[in-house]
Amino acid sequence: MATFVAKTPPFPRPLKCDLSPRARPPFPLLVAPRRAATPLRSRRIACSLIEPDGGRLMDLVVPAGPARDGRRRQAAALPKLNLSRVDLEWVHVLSEGWASPLRGFMRETEFLQTLHFNSLRLPDGSLVNMSVPIVLAIDDVQKNAIGNQRKVALVDANNKLVAILSDIEIYKHNKEERIARTWGTTAEGLPYVKEAIEDAGNWLIGGDLEVIEPIKYNDGLDCYRLSPSQLREEFLRRNADAVFAFQLRNPVHNGHALLMTDTRRRLLEMGYKNPILLLHPLGGFTKADDVPLSWRMKQHEKVLEEGVLDPETTVVAIFPSPMHYAGPTEVQWHAKSRVNAGANFYIVGRDPAGMKHPKEDRDLYDPDHGKKVLSMAPGLEKLNILPFKVAAYDIKKQKMDFFDPSRPKDFLFISGTKMRFLAQNREDPPDGFMCPGGWKVLVEYYETRWKLYQIEPSNTFLEQLIL
Amino acid sequence: MATFVAKTPPFPRPLKCDLSPRARPPFPLLVAPRRAATPLRSRRIACSLIEPDGGRLMDLVVPAGPARDGRRRQAAALPKLNLSRVDLEWVHVLSEGWASPLRGFMRETEFLQTLHFNSLRLPDGSLVNMSVPIVLAIDDVQKNAIGNQRKVALVDANNKLVAILSDIEIYKHNKEERIARTWGTTAEGLPYVKEAIEDAGNWLIGGDLEVIEPIKYNDGLDCYRLSPSQLREEFLRRNADAVFAFQLRNPVHNGHALLMTDTRRRLLEMGYKNPILLLHPLGGFTKADDVPLSWRMKQHEKVLEEGVLDPETTVVAIFPSPMHYAGPTEVQWHAKSRVNAGANFYIVGRDPAGMKHPKEDRDLYDPDHGKKVLSMAPGLEKLNILPFKVAAYDIKKQKMDFFDPSRPKDFLFISGTKMRFLAQNREDPPDGFMCPGGWKVLVEYYETRWKLYQIEPSNTFLEQLIL
Repeated sequence: MATFVAKTPPFPRPLKCDLSPRARPPFPLLVAPRRAATPLRSRRIACSLIEPDGGRLMDLVVPAGPARDGRRRQAAALPKLNLSRVDLEWVHVLSEGWASPLRGFMRETEFLQTLHFNSLRLPDGSLVNMSVPIVLAIDDVQKNAIGNQRKVALVDANNKLVAILSDIEIYKHNKEERIARTWGTTAEGLPYVKEAIEDAGNWLIGGDLEVIEPIKYNDGLDCYRLSPSQLREEFLRRNADAVFAFQLRNPVHNGHALLMTDTRRRLLEMGYKNPILLLHPLGGFTKADDVPLSWRMKQHEKVLEEGVLDPETTVVAIFPSPMHYAGPTEVQWHAKSRVNAGANFYIVGRDPAGMKHPKEDRDLYDPDHGKKVLSMAPGLEKLNILPFKVAAYDIKKQKMDFFDPSRPKDFLFISGTKMRFLAQNREDPPDGFMCPGGWKVLVEYYETRWKLYQIEPSNTFLEQLIL
Repeated sequence: MATFVAKTPPFPRPLKCDLSPRARPPFPLLVAPRRAATPLRSRRIACSLIEPDGGRLMDLVVPAGPARDGRRRQAAALPKLNLSRVDLEWVHVLSEGWASPLRGFMRETEFLQTLHFNSLRLPDGSLVNMSVPIVLAIDDVQKNAIGNQRKVALVDANNKLVAILSDIEIYKHNKEERIARTWGTTAEGLPYVKEAIEDAGNWLIGGDLEVIEPIKYNDGLDCYRLSPSQLREEFLRRNADAVFAFQLRNPVHNGHALLMTDTRRRLLEMGYKNPILLLHPLGGFTKADDVPLSWRMKQHEKVLEEGVLDPETTVVAIFPSPMHYAGPTEVQWHAKSRVNAGANFYIVGRDPAGMKHPKEDRDLYDPDHGKKVLSMAPGLEKLNILPFKVAAYDIKKQKMDFFDPSRPKDFLFISGTKMRFLAQNREDPPDGFMCPGGWKVLVEYYETRWKLYQIEPSNTFLEQLIL
């Protein structure tokens, strides 16, 4: 099965996959013949894929050997900053070049351009898209400890060295302004704000990042965390002449699958010979009522195993970014990072990266703004935006299909409430809504969660299921 | 005196100035020989000045004669929308091309680009700067009254026809998002929000604007309200090879004057032969504690009369825009609109368009962000940004001078508190702080205001005086 979805043992037994140079990955793709001993990261990206932003994919991991050893010695003498979980996810994102041409946490000029223009100007005058601030906050005590030093060491929760930040710049962290300009609201209860901003320090520290070694989570899913460089290699290996990316943070139902297969059909009609789908679940911070990554990955695996998506033309990998839930602002980041991974087509849904307003009974964003803003975003002119078609359950055909406005009564929009009813009663959804294996994973997840937390499922929670 | 500042009778007797074709303006500049009978507006802008955004200065006023009569007849049958004072100021701004290439109130694609990118993409792919939304709000009743009609008539408070808006588009007015993205805060008490957004309708109506006749206020100051086209004519008439604009909403003290004369000196050093200053007070909505336009104009007049600024190289005119107090977002608008009027140099101060946070004891914006954001703004690459040097009162020289960090004790920063003390005691400021005539205007204003409102002057109020 030529796909990145491994035949995994049942959760929660961890997957035995490891991308370190000596390990042999457990699934077919990565045992395909590779070009001798050249390390993956140092290979040049071929020019047949879309160019990364700024022309060159950043790789901020220090090569193993004397250079890495030298950095470790150097770090011992530097002031140390502890990284939160989200900080570490951003180090991961930066280290692999998803945010190319960024070379580290933003300095003030980058931060201001992101907040005001959703884009960065390059030395040649051109613009690249950059819509969410990638910043590192510190407090007064940390700022004082750094004093006039020009470098700091970044360490994880176990005090293990992660990276060195050089040529640093410390500037004010106006949280209110950052939040207002990023989310278009300052209402209390934005998940990322609660997780990563509310209690953060009043300063931001920018600089050039040197990451000591590739970021790993040891959660059994590292094998799915392919860098943009590795994804590009894979697309080239498969002779892709078009790559279309589908960002998601929810289980895949047959409506999604239909959209993806239909997209491939349309690309073939347009004359492409081998369009490849990048099915790209987000792997970083998500809000508490989203389905956790590990369960989603099991569900995605079933979707491919049961042939709903074609493994030959699909690459499944994890996107390491945390989630902002910042709607039209964030969808640009979701698209831009996939350009860096080689995607030249991007499928944009209704209300991408949206959520309910945390204080009012309405969507936080106009559901159409995401695709409108994305289609006009500076720096993304080179990306082809594919708007999401509405799929619903066709009662006559007994399967998910694109909504046909000429016979609206034949279509069933399966609501969160309906899903909840089915789940509570352990009933199956209508035939053809989701592949049986995928549905089983979700039923299992519900049961685990309800047992674990002794709670009734909420509507919001169940609505996640249907995007 | 070759300047736009007329010898005006003492306030409040209105100035007798009129720019209508038949009237003879009361001050020398406008009686200078003009090119035959060609109307001002229709003359082609010469290419020696900076190009307006989009390559062509918009002129949305319908020519007098059959066309105008036709529009009046047409309007009689259209749904009518009443314009507020601020709406009318925006019609004025749009009508004369300050916001070129905008042809009317923003439709949704323009509104979204403004909120997210502070710029608009032109059909050729290039970007022009546009940082503040220029929008017209309507409520449910008005929306229903318009129904499916494609045009509406805009009328003033006296029900007089002002303009026709064609090919209209009605879309949602998400006030929270608009405010958050424009001001970087949603704190209660933002002056423009209170004046023009809080009670406005929940819909925005965009479209192409045809303005029936030039907007006049009949307040004795219309003669100073020169359109971008008229300003360009004047700069050409004076053979300007550089135009440097100074936006202000406060009285001019000698520190400002020093900055402006010093800028001219620097431009001459750079090789320009005849740099002309556009001293350009903002004339639209300002907050209650700003010095009103009429008093400011009297004060500016004294500054020129008493030779603090050179009338030969200075053009004084009123900028018709309302004030947002939106700091780094708004300073871009202040600069962009002056490009459309022919300015290729822009003087940017500390904390431009800034104010105190309405709820917290701090500046709303970082005082340095304005010039930083302006210097990086998309679409303003062609404009030369001149940062404001700090001027203070030099005790030794007994005049305002640029602050010299090598002898900080010689400089007096005249605070709002100090000013208040002087004003309350009817004392004069230090010699050389402001020209005597200008100071007298301000003392007179204070007295009028305090008598009128029976209030003590507040610090905020007095701090306006020293920018």
